[in-house]
Amino acid sequence: MAVDCLFKHAHLFTLAGEGVGYIPDGAVAVTGNRIIAVGDTNQVLADLAAAGNGVIKQEIDATHQALLPGLIDAHIHTQLGLLRGVAQDMHDWMMQGVLPYMLELKPRWQILSSQLTVMEALRAGTTTFGDFLVFPDPALMEFYLSSGIRVRPILPVFEIGPELLAGGKLYQLDDHMGQASYNEALRLYAEYHGAADGRIQCMMGPFAPDFISEKTLVKCKDAAAAKGLPIQMHTAQGDRETEQMEMRYKKRTIPYLDEHEYLDPEFTAVHMTMANNDEVHQVAEAGSKLVVCNGSIGLIDGMIPPAIPFQEAGGTVGLGSDQAAGNNNCNVFNEMKLTAFFGKMRNQDPTAMPADRALRMATIDGAKALGLEDEIGSLEVGKKADLILVDTRHPTLQPVIEAPFNLTANLVYAARGNEVSFVMIDGRVVFDDGKLQTMDEDAVIQEIRETVPSRRKKVGFM
Amino acid sequence: MAVDCLFKHAHLFTLAGEGVGYIPDGAVAVTGNRIIAVGDTNQVLADLAAAGNGVIKQEIDATHQALLPGLIDAHIHTQLGLLRGVAQDMHDWMMQGVLPYMLELKPRWQILSSQLTVMEALRAGTTTFGDFLVFPDPALMEFYLSSGIRVRPILPVFEIGPELLAGGKLYQLDDHMGQASYNEALRLYAEYHGAADGRIQCMMGPFAPDFISEKTLVKCKDAAAAKGLPIQMHTAQGDRETEQMEMRYKKRTIPYLDEHEYLDPEFTAVHMTMANNDEVHQVAEAGSKLVVCNGSIGLIDGMIPPAIPFQEAGGTVGLGSDQAAGNNNCNVFNEMKLTAFFGKMRNQDPTAMPADRALRMATIDGAKALGLEDEIGSLEVGKKADLILVDTRHPTLQPVIEAPFNLTANLVYAARGNEVSFVMIDGRVVFDDGKLQTMDEDAVIQEIRETVPSRRKKVGFM
Repeated sequence: MAVDCLFKHAHLFTLAGEGVGYIPDGAVAVTGNRIIAVGDTNQVLADLAAAGNGVIKQEIDATHQALLPGLIDAHIHTQLGLLRGVAQDMHDWMMQGVLPYMLELKPRWQILSSQLTVMEALRAGTTTFGDFLVFPDPALMEFYLSSGIRVRPILPVFEIGPELLAGGKLYQLDDHMGQASYNEALRLYAEYHGAADGRIQCMMGPFAPDFISEKTLVKCKDAAAAKGLPIQMHTAQGDRETEQMEMRYKKRTIPYLDEHEYLDPEFTAVHMTMANNDEVHQVAEAGSKLVVCNGSIGLIDGMIPPAIPFQEAGGTVGLGSDQAAGNNNCNVFNEMKLTAFFGKMRNQDPTAMPADRALRMATIDGAKALGLEDEIGSLEVGKKADLILVDTRHPTLQPVIEAPFNLTANLVYAARGNEVSFVMIDGRVVFDDGKLQTMDEDAVIQEIRETVPSRRKKVGFM
Repeated sequence: MAVDCLFKHAHLFTLAGEGVGYIPDGAVAVTGNRIIAVGDTNQVLADLAAAGNGVIKQEIDATHQALLPGLIDAHIHTQLGLLRGVAQDMHDWMMQGVLPYMLELKPRWQILSSQLTVMEALRAGTTTFGDFLVFPDPALMEFYLSSGIRVRPILPVFEIGPELLAGGKLYQLDDHMGQASYNEALRLYAEYHGAADGRIQCMMGPFAPDFISEKTLVKCKDAAAAKGLPIQMHTAQGDRETEQMEMRYKKRTIPYLDEHEYLDPEFTAVHMTMANNDEVHQVAEAGSKLVVCNGSIGLIDGMIPPAIPFQEAGGTVGLGSDQAAGNNNCNVFNEMKLTAFFGKMRNQDPTAMPADRALRMATIDGAKALGLEDEIGSLEVGKKADLILVDTRHPTLQPVIEAPFNLTANLVYAARGNEVSFVMIDGRVVFDDGKLQTMDEDAVIQEIRETVPSRRKKVGFM
């Protein structure tokens, strides 16, 4: 078997096994969209030669580069990218801050939002997106295909009626909307699940326990089980949800989900900011996963998501940037840094949430949170070739005294994302030579600047 | 009077008056090292014409650029730049983490540290450094002169003996070291204070109340008063300090400083992480200033500095990146973001520490904390021409829906520092066309990579 691409002499962070899996002079060989060899450069070269892999089509000298698995943004709403900065430093972020703008996002702006988000994220080394859809749209799926990113589109089901904006009273759930969004989710599943040799793999996305009826909650679980799809859901995300759950069901979210058999290894909760300690333990012990969005929840609520107690209970936690309207960033390096910071803050302990754990959350643990750990999240033989190079000669990463010693710390605490020099997804180069290879970035920026109004009215764009 | 440089059509953030002082289509005119006009572009052009300022030597069309005062890093140890990442995720950061490396920093490495730090900071829009010296060295002063940065070298006085590393017992203060460092401070003052037309202005730097004797504390205050120098000091920075103060003086730091008449408008405290609420109020009400280093203290101690209570007591708070060994960053954009985040965390309130306040702390309030508010920190007629341009067309800042509405938020929460496109200090261009104009960046990086060992021994470099 010929080798399509051989990376050699890298600071290799495999993220295989425990810790960061560092190999000082490391190599990775890729054939097609799979990794066929990983290890010490001399050993990999010798093994390839012994196995008769004479032809190496391309060799990349990765000296002074950190070679890492592609980063995983396990919860993001790419379709809200154009809402960056619109709802900051305020209470009632969702209803008063974002929703008025969200309702005016035309279909074309939703696509531009995704393109802007993906541009920013790809350049910062994100290769996999757990994209929780807000506006299901085949045009978005087509963009996934052309841009080359790996995606878990999380197919949204919701049935929130017009009372949503009022606050304080029970929402009336809209059965028609529930049915329509459920049907659309299944339609997108039928058409796109497994597309591009599995680069697109859907998840079910009952939006939030207060945004759908009990009947629809059950229906989503049944459909997901029948199709073998994992579920991702906003869970215990805010006091509005808690209030609605108690008004409607006289229960808090976690017991309610437990009663409906949601708490199993196929379930990934997002946020859980309002969950109490017992509930955090209950979800982790059920084998469900958690995705925390530190930047987003930090700015929206001034709160620290429960990553540490979830991990202490044995659970797996991935990272998400959520959306530009809360976080202002679509950058997993930013999330790693904030996650480590917030862990230390939460425990008032500098040893809490160390750099290597944050790096695992951004890679292998994120893969687990998306149910993709057999395919991505670490650099191991047989996994998909999703990998990035980070230039350690960049001023912000100087000096490399010893890797992984201060290099892991610098990747997590010092890197801004701009140090990423190369991105490969599914064996395909998507970022190199300072340019995205699969998108016309200038055209996206230009269209945004020409079509998005530069003066808002009272609320919203128009 | 001819205009040397006219910036026009900018998103102008003057930081004059209250808030961010935004002018939608703004202009700034510079002659020599001073700002001679600020305002609406048409108005500035008309005023210049009416005043007979016919000659405009250079015009810079700043359309789609945010034009801001240069950012102020009010507390940094540039000489520790090469220690990035060496002491993370650990207890006893100073003694066990940093000190073993610090003691091995050869004079040449100290200069390389400063150069690395300044390169990173300048590119991210920092124009003024409150550089708390660790190793006083005329070679550093010469680097200040050649690099074009504005500096408050904070001249260190310390007399810590060899017991420092032991912990738990009272340090023996070394009178000889105190005398030598005091003399060296005054020597540097005599030689460099006011150099480069005032770009270098010294401050007195009694290192910390537990690092000097009572006698030396008084001597520093007297010398500062005699020479009209403000004082900056690490104050209430950690529990080791509190322990030493109580062992030696049976007092906590703030009452001790009050007793020695340190708490006046010429005094700037750094950190105050261990100060209680009454002490925070006492210092603020005395008119002293505070510099907080959120990134550094967050990583070193997992704590949130008391910026909010200090401001609530009417005090002025500037920002500092401290040093690369704690923070891993020398980037005021990073500090603005973390400051806003940590404020929200501290109060569990998304409205706490809003973006515009963080931007003030990075500019005009930082100038006040360095006693330089008459010269820098805002764009006003008569102030020094320290200013930066930030390209709002950068993907990370898109879209600009309305300024200052979402643009302030995006500058504080989304910008990484890489969006800075131009830096002028004292009327001189120091960064433009993607390159520092006053430093050979490649040579610095190359020397670091060739001379700093890439394998450490048990501790330290050698």
